[in-house]
Amino acid sequence: MSTTIRALGRRLRLGVVGGGSGSFIGPVHRAAARLDDHYEVVAAVLSRDADRSRAAAQDIGIGAERAYGDLAALLASEDRREDGIDVLAVMTPNAMHYTACRDALDHGLDVICDKPLTASLGDAVDLVRLVRSSGRVFCVTYNYTGYPMVRQARAMIKAGELGEIRQVHVEYVQGHLARAVPADSDPAVAWRFDPQQCGVSLILGDIGTHAHHLAAFITGLKLERVAADLGATVPGRAADDYAALLLRWEGGARGSMWVTNSAAGAEHGLAIRVFGSEGGLEWHQEEPNRLLHRPIDGFARLLTRGRVGLSSEAGHATRLRVGHPEGFHEAFANLYADTAAHIVARRAQRDVDPPALDIPTVEDGARGIRFIEAAVESQRAHGHWIDCRLPL
Amino acid sequence: MSTTIRALGRRLRLGVVGGGSGSFIGPVHRAAARLDDHYEVVAAVLSRDADRSRAAAQDIGIGAERAYGDLAALLASEDRREDGIDVLAVMTPNAMHYTACRDALDHGLDVICDKPLTASLGDAVDLVRLVRSSGRVFCVTYNYTGYPMVRQARAMIKAGELGEIRQVHVEYVQGHLARAVPADSDPAVAWRFDPQQCGVSLILGDIGTHAHHLAAFITGLKLERVAADLGATVPGRAADDYAALLLRWEGGARGSMWVTNSAAGAEHGLAIRVFGSEGGLEWHQEEPNRLLHRPIDGFARLLTRGRVGLSSEAGHATRLRVGHPEGFHEAFANLYADTAAHIVARRAQRDVDPPALDIPTVEDGARGIRFIEAAVESQRAHGHWIDCRLPL
Amino acid sequence: MSTTIRALGRRLRLGVVGGGSGSFIGPVHRAAARLDDHYEVVAAVLSRDADRSRAAAQDIGIGAERAYGDLAALLASEDRREDGIDVLAVMTPNAMHYTACRDALDHGLDVICDKPLTASLGDAVDLVRLVRSSGRVFCVTYNYTGYPMVRQARAMIKAGELGEIRQVHVEYVQGHLARAVPADSDPAVAWRFDPQQCGVSLILGDIGTHAHHLAAFITGLKLERVAADLGATVPGRAADDYAALLLRWEGGARGSMWVTNSAAGAEHGLAIRVFGSEGGLEWHQEEPNRLLHRPIDGFARLLTRGRVGLSSEAGHATRLRVGHPEGFHEAFANLYADTAAHIVARRAQRDVDPPALDIPTVEDGARGIRFIEAAVESQRAHGHWIDCRLPL
Amino acid sequence: MSTTIRALGRRLRLGVVGGGSGSFIGPVHRAAARLDDHYEVVAAVLSRDADRSRAAAQDIGIGAERAYGDLAALLASEDRREDGIDVLAVMTPNAMHYTACRDALDHGLDVICDKPLTASLGDAVDLVRLVRSSGRVFCVTYNYTGYPMVRQARAMIKAGELGEIRQVHVEYVQGHLARAVPADSDPAVAWRFDPQQCGVSLILGDIGTHAHHLAAFITGLKLERVAADLGATVPGRAADDYAALLLRWEGGARGSMWVTNSAAGAEHGLAIRVFGSEGGLEWHQEEPNRLLHRPIDGFARLLTRGRVGLSSEAGHATRLRVGHPEGFHEAFANLYADTAAHIVARRAQRDVDPPALDIPTVEDGARGIRFIEAAVESQRAHGHWIDCRLPL
Repeated sequence: MSTTIRALGRRLRLGVVGGGSGSFIGPVHRAAARLDDHYEVVAAVLSRDADRSRAAAQDIGIGAERAYGDLAALLASEDRREDGIDVLAVMTPNAMHYTACRDALDHGLDVICDKPLTASLGDAVDLVRLVRSSGRVFCVTYNYTGYPMVRQARAMIKAGELGEIRQVHVEYVQGHLARAVPADSDPAVAWRFDPQQCGVSLILGDIGTHAHHLAAFITGLKLERVAADLGATVPGRAADDYAALLLRWEGGARGSMWVTNSAAGAEHGLAIRVFGSEGGLEWHQEEPNRLLHRPIDGFARLLTRGRVGLSSEAGHATRLRVGHPEGFHEAFANLYADTAAHIVARRAQRDVDPPALDIPTVEDGARGIRFIEAAVESQRAHGHWIDCRLPL
Repeated sequence: MSTTIRALGRRLRLGVVGGGSGSFIGPVHRAAARLDDHYEVVAAVLSRDADRSRAAAQDIGIGAERAYGDLAALLASEDRREDGIDVLAVMTPNAMHYTACRDALDHGLDVICDKPLTASLGDAVDLVRLVRSSGRVFCVTYNYTGYPMVRQARAMIKAGELGEIRQVHVEYVQGHLARAVPADSDPAVAWRFDPQQCGVSLILGDIGTHAHHLAAFITGLKLERVAADLGATVPGRAADDYAALLLRWEGGARGSMWVTNSAAGAEHGLAIRVFGSEGGLEWHQEEPNRLLHRPIDGFARLLTRGRVGLSSEAGHATRLRVGHPEGFHEAFANLYADTAAHIVARRAQRDVDPPALDIPTVEDGARGIRFIEAAVESQRAHGHWIDCRLPL
Repeated sequence: MSTTIRALGRRLRLGVVGGGSGSFIGPVHRAAARLDDHYEVVAAVLSRDADRSRAAAQDIGIGAERAYGDLAALLASEDRREDGIDVLAVMTPNAMHYTACRDALDHGLDVICDKPLTASLGDAVDLVRLVRSSGRVFCVTYNYTGYPMVRQARAMIKAGELGEIRQVHVEYVQGHLARAVPADSDPAVAWRFDPQQCGVSLILGDIGTHAHHLAAFITGLKLERVAADLGATVPGRAADDYAALLLRWEGGARGSMWVTNSAAGAEHGLAIRVFGSEGGLEWHQEEPNRLLHRPIDGFARLLTRGRVGLSSEAGHATRLRVGHPEGFHEAFANLYADTAAHIVARRAQRDVDPPALDIPTVEDGARGIRFIEAAVESQRAHGHWIDCRLPL
Repeated sequence: MSTTIRALGRRLRLGVVGGGSGSFIGPVHRAAARLDDHYEVVAAVLSRDADRSRAAAQDIGIGAERAYGDLAALLASEDRREDGIDVLAVMTPNAMHYTACRDALDHGLDVICDKPLTASLGDAVDLVRLVRSSGRVFCVTYNYTGYPMVRQARAMIKAGELGEIRQVHVEYVQGHLARAVPADSDPAVAWRFDPQQCGVSLILGDIGTHAHHLAAFITGLKLERVAADLGATVPGRAADDYAALLLRWEGGARGSMWVTNSAAGAEHGLAIRVFGSEGGLEWHQEEPNRLLHRPIDGFARLLTRGRVGLSSEAGHATRLRVGHPEGFHEAFANLYADTAAHIVARRAQRDVDPPALDIPTVEDGARGIRFIEAAVESQRAHGHWIDCRLPL
């Protein structure tokens, strides 16, 4: 049952900007918000076109008076309502994240923002500053960290079960863009391949940041240096669709990363393997309810979500009994639920319960932007190692 | 986006009876109802104790005036409200299903009811009659049929891709009750082992009916005869925790079933394999996004939810892109969504869209009860084959 | 290195009868004999046609003088040679096993014989008597028991790691005969479907006995009763291509078996699951280097051949390091190697080393024949339970 | 049946140097030679100590007069015999490969040599020259290319089924050296960590060359450039136990490699994924009988060894029916069998049958040595890309 209802006597009121018609991530955010009954979506801006925005909002069950034409109107009007929104969820195109988050923070709202955090490192660092001075809760939806078995992996490494971390390999091998896209194709697809619109590296902004954050989250380590090979594998493409990187982590662990959206036939393909002095862990997002643990001695163990013996962090992120598969929605919803816990704790001026602590922060978002920039620098320097630390 | 909101301009109003504190299935029903925004849960009875019921209902966000003490009060009061519930979802102990469903139908409500349908075949047949005369929508939550790849399997067999069905093996091998339960243990556990309370066969009522329905759903065949070996494998247990059955299906296909909750170390273990003259299919609930197709010629194919090339039935039941795992909640929600489609169609006096047609019906529920009875008869007859057809 | 060479200063001299041109199992036996250098194949009868037999023997590298025209000649001539054969391996059609084994024993040879042991229970029991009175080594090539992880499963159960055995499910689901075979087809195929030639039950003789023996070997239990559903699933076929059985084991464990060669698209499909009071084991012949252990507490463990921590029985049956796959040949060769160890021990009048003890015996062979007969009796008795114990 | 016996009327006579007591690879070579009856091992040098060598040879069944004390004696003596060896198999420590192969070629023998080919590129290039001038057959036992499904992958790519190759990722992630090895440990282990003895890069010589050759073999492409991160991940170790590389292939395909022997808990871990414009392939050595094919359209296909529909190259390398696992021994034996086919063809002055053509050549061996050197150069150049082409 919803701990938010128990604590506040009501659900949190959520406004959303972005994620309208045709969006994949919009319905995901909203379903994640609804799943555990911590939030109700009460206000929305769903298109850059004001009329379309209002119509689309009503289509998803928003009352007419809170179906807004633009974000400024939403923020102003909700500010005035007694039942105004508590939180803004930002799922606009990447380039608009910065101003939306900034304005929401200025209105005193807690914020949930999609990744990558911003289009430039300057904006990202500025958001870090704004969040810190505001005291508001800020969650970047690096949603893969919401999976219980990812939480389990992090908890095991934190508890020293893998000993010293020595090797980290993360990969995100998709195939949905393996075909050349005709120049005159659907703008909803074509923008991705236009470096003006997709950012400095399509592949790193889109999925590389997920891979980077996942590895950092699980290992508890910061990435220090990268050497990168970026490029387009599909002929005639201007934007990067492939990256392979050599990695050095805080403490000396080595690693590699392979990310692409153009591996023909591949599906989702996010996976991570971590080896320490005492054993290894392996997790595949496509079978998220399992975590393979290979201790240096003895036999490999198949840890399954919901089974007795997992960490409190994994248990906290679990709704269903062992063998009843949870998936992408629940992982996403865990970020919403934990953000709700942060908000409730902030309002009550008490600490967040430990297992709910680990939401991806604005600092994590900024580190992701620095990671992208460093990889691009390395590529330009013919593969030289580049420092990607960010003193935050 | 919710097609129900688009059609009705609002969500369906759902009342729930059962599924209160400590229940596994209660939160699942409610999350399933919420996930796609077809329903809002507005009224509830959550305990046989009136005070507890009202408190528990408010705890899940039900307004005080619709947090009822018993079902009679709920039905009477909701009947009088302009914004009264449209649908009642029944998730009480099995023995109470019959009266709850009957009373809800009497009040003109559409009904969603957990399985097994009733405690006796007589009650089940009576419900069939009532549903037919009422014209109301009735869904039995054989939730495993909500999985997209189960829908895919059914569609492929219906389209003849497996040829004539020849062998069907279904199993449901759980381990959560592998330990002897002390006589003085928690009543919430102990009732399961008391034949007075758990019904004529614990294992068949609890999970055997799921296995039976899943196989019938996927093959499109009715089960005609069973020969059964039922019993308790844990010493000192009075209730069946194990069943193995030989099966004969309509059209002559042979098969077998293995169901237990006492296979130590096992988790969920629902799986089905069907072989026809042209190939076979295999599906495991613990990896629900995959369906293995083995054509008689050529190589095995791994069908994955969300991939281009699946049936419209599978596509209809899918929310997320390939590689983004869906699970138990989404499958459950598919029954709620399709039931909503039935209700909207009933109200608009139009046909249900074909891919939403296949919700488990009251007749399916009654067949499940007959299946249990026939298996028990076979066991008593030292394994003789028993006819389990039900002329509905 | 070959312990036989070390012990005897030479390889054992092996004669073979059967397994000539077109045979699958002939080359397997000979490769198994060669693999570990315990045997050299020096004499052979490879066809019922004497000329063909001699030619075929020379084709596989047998010297002309030991390429025989029939078994009587082989036995007589080898008897006279100073370097005559030590062992006869019998891989003729099933109906000829009895006389070949009997005659070899009469000549004082040790014997390796394919399964099923004989065409009738009377012959089988007679062979038991002959082997016992002869004191010779006799191995029935139930080859699946040669896999290291099968040995591991047996050792774990013997050591009590699964507690009391409660449920046993074994299956052997092949697809190679899923098509109707035309009446005028190749006799090499057609004989299988002629009940005169294939024995009382094609499916049970061919693969059912393997499944039966594997389950008995792993659990260390004898099968006591069966209730069977046998038949042909392919229209127009006279011989059984399908069997499903309910099983009762010594000590009360229950179980089931599913065997077929007509599941379209299936490949080999031999698999077993055993559950006891303390956990379960699962093994699939198609991935033979792994054994899944699911303890009642804690997490599932993936035991892999060659890994530190396995039983001495598994270690004994292992040649290659972990991760270097062994397969069908090595499992078969383990029976040959262990039979060599028995022969060496017999000659030296000392005990066999414990891990080499577990070769399938003539008694195991006879129990397999009784199993087939009991299943056929049950089928004729409309599924009644039939006692299949054999007091040996 | 052995095609060599059929062609020559006898088995090829094989001499072996190296692989004595305690060796893993020695028994593998000899079992591979025996498995298919193309060879008999008749002469051996099994230790640098002459007495031990002779004793060890007799222990494996070599007659006393052909159990030699050193290679020079073996070559001289066998040269004089009418039944002298046809082939020498070299499985000494790496540093001795060059002279052994050179001397064997000088005596007119065909040669089978373990990898890496030599300790220096100069020696490797010299061997290339010697082999070419001798006209003798030379096989480097890059044994993983003997797997039928590896042959299948190569055949599919050659036939264009993957279109243009765009991404290649190969990995070999072992864990057996994950612990620090004490300075005073067993010399049989300690030499591996001594850069004087293990070569310029322990990890690349030991398993990196396998990974490199496997990728080149499957794709049919030559590697052109590498950027490398080499090093020791276990504290206090002087030799490389880890390498991650960025790769550029002939034709522009990109890729990466991860090889280590120090990933705690890992087993064998050789795996490859190749993606082209029309789909991808994935193969894992630990499950060698399967090949996953993911076409850009349609569903993933699970190709299994022995199934109808595979290439003639895969069929040629297959002994057992589908579902009867083959493994490491058979793959190794395929190199021996194909080398026998080359030798028979050479003697008969006819062409090798196409499916037997693809044995790893001395040129492949030399390319492996250049690969190692280039990777070490890149590491010294702080990760700069280094050309590794070798104009052979």
